[in-house]
Amino acid sequence: MKRVEGGICAVSGVSAAGVRRGRHGLALIVASGAAAGMFTTNRVRAAPLEVTAQNLAGGHLDGVIANSGCANAYTGPRGLEDARSMARLLAGFLGTDETKIGVASTGVIGRYLDLGQIQSLFLEASANLRSDGTASMDAERAIMTTDTRPKEIAVEHGGLRVAGIVKGAGMIEPNVATMLCFLYTDAVISAERLHDCLADAVKDSFNMLTVDGDTSTNDTVLITATGRATGREEDLREALRYVCMELARMMARDGEGASKYFEVYVTGAASEKDARLAAKAVARSSLVKTAVYGADPNWGRIICAVGYSGAEMDPTRITLGLEGKSRDGSASRVSLVERGKIVEDVLDRAQEIMKGEEIIINIDLSLGSASARGFGCDLTHEYVNVNANYTT
Amino acid sequence: MKRVEGGICAVSGVSAAGVRRGRHGLALIVASGAAAGMFTTNRVRAAPLEVTAQNLAGGHLDGVIANSGCANAYTGPRGLEDARSMARLLAGFLGTDETKIGVASTGVIGRYLDLGQIQSLFLEASANLRSDGTASMDAERAIMTTDTRPKEIAVEHGGLRVAGIVKGAGMIEPNVATMLCFLYTDAVISAERLHDCLADAVKDSFNMLTVDGDTSTNDTVLITATGRATGREEDLREALRYVCMELARMMARDGEGASKYFEVYVTGAASEKDARLAAKAVARSSLVKTAVYGADPNWGRIICAVGYSGAEMDPTRITLGLEGKSRDGSASRVSLVERGKIVEDVLDRAQEIMKGEEIIINIDLSLGSASARGFGCDLTHEYVNVNANYTT
Repeated sequence: MKRVEGGICAVSGVSAAGVRRGRHGLALIVASGAAAGMFTTNRVRAAPLEVTAQNLAGGHLDGVIANSGCANAYTGPRGLEDARSMARLLAGFLGTDETKIGVASTGVIGRYLDLGQIQSLFLEASANLRSDGTASMDAERAIMTTDTRPKEIAVEHGGLRVAGIVKGAGMIEPNVATMLCFLYTDAVISAERLHDCLADAVKDSFNMLTVDGDTSTNDTVLITATGRATGREEDLREALRYVCMELARMMARDGEGASKYFEVYVTGAASEKDARLAAKAVARSSLVKTAVYGADPNWGRIICAVGYSGAEMDPTRITLGLEGKSRDGSASRVSLVERGKIVEDVLDRAQEIMKGEEIIINIDLSLGSASARGFGCDLTHEYVNVNANYTT
Repeated sequence: MKRVEGGICAVSGVSAAGVRRGRHGLALIVASGAAAGMFTTNRVRAAPLEVTAQNLAGGHLDGVIANSGCANAYTGPRGLEDARSMARLLAGFLGTDETKIGVASTGVIGRYLDLGQIQSLFLEASANLRSDGTASMDAERAIMTTDTRPKEIAVEHGGLRVAGIVKGAGMIEPNVATMLCFLYTDAVISAERLHDCLADAVKDSFNMLTVDGDTSTNDTVLITATGRATGREEDLREALRYVCMELARMMARDGEGASKYFEVYVTGAASEKDARLAAKAVARSSLVKTAVYGADPNWGRIICAVGYSGAEMDPTRITLGLEGKSRDGSASRVSLVERGKIVEDVLDRAQEIMKGEEIIINIDLSLGSASARGFGCDLTHEYVNVNANYTT
């Protein structure tokens, strides 16, 4: 997979802009083409998601308008009207219909949008639309909330380009968290096939990520295919999976308060569902997350989480190991449990690995051949700082 | 419900003792009678639970031996043998069969018991068995791990006494967390009826409690009825429910690192299952827990948790309020959402309530008549301290 510069603007036909004032930001992304989206599974679905889902019925978008600071969630009919007003702003500017615009919001739930402010941000942003790497970065920065750094990627594969930006650091248990992700490709593809490729990529990437186990009301992943390049769907699918996996890893690394990133790689599961349940339970466990933070090789918490995950498992067959880079930079591995037997005298080595910034927890259930990878981050003092005073 | 002094020794026929050396403690409780128990739903079930579950098949216990410091979990055949050795120690002392002893452990998972140490603690404890309030407290203190205070209660109701001690502060998501709870009553009752009363009490108390969402490998609730007093089963049932609810509240108040306690009272649910799902999702949410810690009236997080709980709900029908004592000690209430409509200009009052040490979150789903109460505590810097370096 070849990385390219330029963020989402690396895809032909995409231009972007973003502005922010304090906690409030507005991003505009203009790109015409077949479009598909996936949204939160939360029963409380924010107004912009309703509007965007309706608009996607047409299978085509001309652009996206997204704000940060206010989630426009749990805002009833007024919220829906506000989301439509956002769509109208961009549609008017582009000379298209408001039903061809995607709308997304992130921020505090249960507050109404300040439309006057949105309008003023829009005027500034729309005057700055352009198609270069800094424009992509501006759009990304405009929608960040507790994110500490922008997260974008662009790749070229089989003559096609796929690129995406994502925001999201907390309320992350995507099925789909508030994560907002805007993906672009220059491939020629129908909206239906595009949705299929998207669903496939999201399942193993964003849906296997957990920061705090809370599923947001506003999660949105949108993809638009501008149709400027020809290539094979298989290559698009592969590139899209790669892009989504990398964006998911970036989100885990930038999880609220996170100091460390870890992956949970479950193999030998009886079914894919079991592998996913086990990987997510370990990645989500507050006790595993605090142990990772403290570099405490208390691996019993990992086994415990597998035990309550709901996955089919046999305690006497589990093999458990850690993999990582120790502080001197060398890669290392340690086996903690082998087919149900505790390996003695390895806790010092395990602790050394856990002191690293990236840790892989390998769990072989030895029951079948299914596997899954979960993405997580540690639970730190800073997480508590970030979340104890979010609105005040 | 009349409270009485004496902890579990307030029940006729119960004697107790406890000793501890640093992180390692041993409790002995001697009481003969019909017995029942409930255990963790974790697929990895610690050795002492296997042994005790087998022993309860006989419907009778003569005593309980419980240690802290080592969970004897994930320890294979050796662990089972070690748990039986613990049972044999007390059985030998009492002149009974080892199958009439309950065994329980709490502490680090994946470590073998130090039987020499258990034996030495046993010698000391057994020489101190007696039936008074300090003995009950000694037993309780011996099994504490990250608990900051002992948790016990004894009541008298309809001529019957019911009493219990409990330990548990983390890895708490009882279905049944490591919580160990030992309950006693002087009622005359069969083991089967006793189990039924216990299941009923546990369902609405310990099973509605969450500290960190992790379900332990070692959760155990045991009850023994010494048969010294006559009374109605209905009174026993009522007293047992009261005792378990109070012990669950004590555990939530003493949750790892907790500075505040909160209850989530869900009413108007379409079914009891929905009510329980919603109450537990809110009590478990890291974002609600950190908001409680920071007294941040970010109530959208509550609605969000209800939304992903899996409970049947209609966002436009929810009524949400907070209840608590403000810092000056006066009780107060505030309504935040009324049948789906945001109440304006109440965030200051909500914040005042959230500054209190005890908060009740009232959620009316307005869909039916089922209700449930969840018990939780805030997520604090101290929680991270306690858990980042548990074994090291």
